[in-house]
Amino acid sequence: MKTDKILLDHGNGGKISHHLISDMLLPIFDNPILSQLNDSAILNIQGKSLAFSTDTFTVDPVFFPGGNIGDIAVNGTVNNLAMCGASPLYLSVGLVIEEGFSMADLEKILKTMKTAAGNASMQIVTGDTKVVPKGAADNIFINTSGIGLIPAVADIAVHKACVGDKIIVSGDIGDHGIAVLSQREGMSFESSVISDTAPLNYVVKKMLMRTKEIHVLRDPTRGGVGTALNEIADKSDVGIQIYEDKIPVKDEVARICELLGVDPLYVANEGKFLAFVREDHAEMILEAIRRDKVAKGACIIGEVVSDHPGKVVMETRIGGTRIVDMLTTDQLPRIC
Amino acid sequence: MKTDKILLDHGNGGKISHHLISDMLLPIFDNPILSQLNDSAILNIQGKSLAFSTDTFTVDPVFFPGGNIGDIAVNGTVNNLAMCGASPLYLSVGLVIEEGFSMADLEKILKTMKTAAGNASMQIVTGDTKVVPKGAADNIFINTSGIGLIPAVADIAVHKACVGDKIIVSGDIGDHGIAVLSQREGMSFESSVISDTAPLNYVVKKMLMRTKEIHVLRDPTRGGVGTALNEIADKSDVGIQIYEDKIPVKDEVARICELLGVDPLYVANEGKFLAFVREDHAEMILEAIRRDKVAKGACIIGEVVSDHPGKVVMETRIGGTRIVDMLTTDQLPRIC
Repeated sequence: MKTDKILLDHGNGGKISHHLISDMLLPIFDNPILSQLNDSAILNIQGKSLAFSTDTFTVDPVFFPGGNIGDIAVNGTVNNLAMCGASPLYLSVGLVIEEGFSMADLEKILKTMKTAAGNASMQIVTGDTKVVPKGAADNIFINTSGIGLIPAVADIAVHKACVGDKIIVSGDIGDHGIAVLSQREGMSFESSVISDTAPLNYVVKKMLMRTKEIHVLRDPTRGGVGTALNEIADKSDVGIQIYEDKIPVKDEVARICELLGVDPLYVANEGKFLAFVREDHAEMILEAIRRDKVAKGACIIGEVVSDHPGKVVMETRIGGTRIVDMLTTDQLPRIC
Repeated sequence: MKTDKILLDHGNGGKISHHLISDMLLPIFDNPILSQLNDSAILNIQGKSLAFSTDTFTVDPVFFPGGNIGDIAVNGTVNNLAMCGASPLYLSVGLVIEEGFSMADLEKILKTMKTAAGNASMQIVTGDTKVVPKGAADNIFINTSGIGLIPAVADIAVHKACVGDKIIVSGDIGDHGIAVLSQREGMSFESSVISDTAPLNYVVKKMLMRTKEIHVLRDPTRGGVGTALNEIADKSDVGIQIYEDKIPVKDEVARICELLGVDPLYVANEGKFLAFVREDHAEMILEAIRRDKVAKGACIIGEVVSDHPGKVVMETRIGGTRIVDMLTTDQLPRIC
């Protein structure tokens, strides 16, 4: 899709975002590490395997049920690193603050970041603060970049899904997006849903201590589970089969999604992961990760198939099948 | 200075920025690597000494004489890494784009970034793109974070200035700030000044090949030479003596500064450095770096003294002395 101007959908993490990346960013930057489009770049520096990741957070509102921009800014990068199997080590923080932003709110956000970093055993070691005149930004934007160390046992990448792999999701989907939406001005529903923001590095470590047979990890943030599965199907050139009745969604999230006309498959999560694992290791992995509170609702939602490579197909509750495409147009900008 | 709200001056790189950092950010994040306040964090990962740096660019306008936001976004992080003596390796790019931003301008900026990264031998390996609704940001903000490798020979940090050190500046100061200002709406002067944006990693490498006796490097961006010298005097707990008649400023820059009532000592540079070097190595270093086009105007502007620790004192052209404080209030927001 060619346009002269940047559209909101260029940032939604879905199909139009991917066009921007594949049609403009990748050809210009032209780098084999970048082209892999893993959640982190995988670097080799003098024999050490490091993960390096960046993410900017523009969530609106800044405070939402279950957290604030500081939680997701730290956990987001922690999780990007964890999705390569890395142990997070060092974090940078880049703030863009609108003139007039409340100093007390800033303090609250920074304290949240410190706590979140500590919870993930990360150190905040470098930073930058810019202030722009009133109206030139909306409240506060936070970039975090992180470095992690990849253990030798990890061989995880978005192109490594194999036919037969079981697909695990670590718990209920869509909580973060609905929690943020419930706080938006003009939204007419009440909800008790809170963001699932959480660090995933320990549960990933636990999995890697049990088995090397984790082929792909992905945290389904912007664009949701539907988009993440499509990225994996595309990069691994495999078919993906999922089952609607196996996908865990809280009743309240499902009800609000229906009310808003959005599909939970495309709603952002900030503390969930998808794992593609060897078939005969799946139950053992489930059993191990369910002991961890961030994955106690983990379950198998489908498998990798040799049919329809590059496509995600869902068996619906009523027994039909439908193709699950990437997110196209989004009614939920600034969800993270 | 206590305020309830964030002020523009909290982002100017000067005195009020430093208060925000020392009174809020450092106590909350409470990390010994961060507290050093070097241009990059200096990390030890399994025996490798790495530099890690982040910077967000919000320059207005996005295109200015001598470059655009893409140049300074790459060179800014390259230079932060170089100021620890590091060879830059890997770069991340985090974009926040306002809905409606020109796709052609985005392409131009990204191509500039690719060229700039190549010029500094850096690879762009990971990225993130967010789009916010029209009015929620102004055009485009770019965060870059970078990783570099610190050679064993480098032992450079902001607290390492020694009494007797000569202070080198690598060329004319104030060009970047004046070039950007000349493009601002409502500015009534014409100018042929162009930004000095440039990568400094090669010239630093050249210095390190000649001598280990480089104690401090600093690129005087926001807040200018005056603020950078104060940071060094403070962190090294030494006095700094400079000479007004030795500080290189283009006639045109000096004239425009006078017109605008700003002091070139506080105007941002994007391709200059300050080097504190052992006295008897200074001439040899000057001779070496002047062959490099980014430092052909290098000269000695002063020295480190045992008097007035923590303070920067300038001998003026008319023979008096004045204290050069950090930048206080800034009329030049969004200069980088």
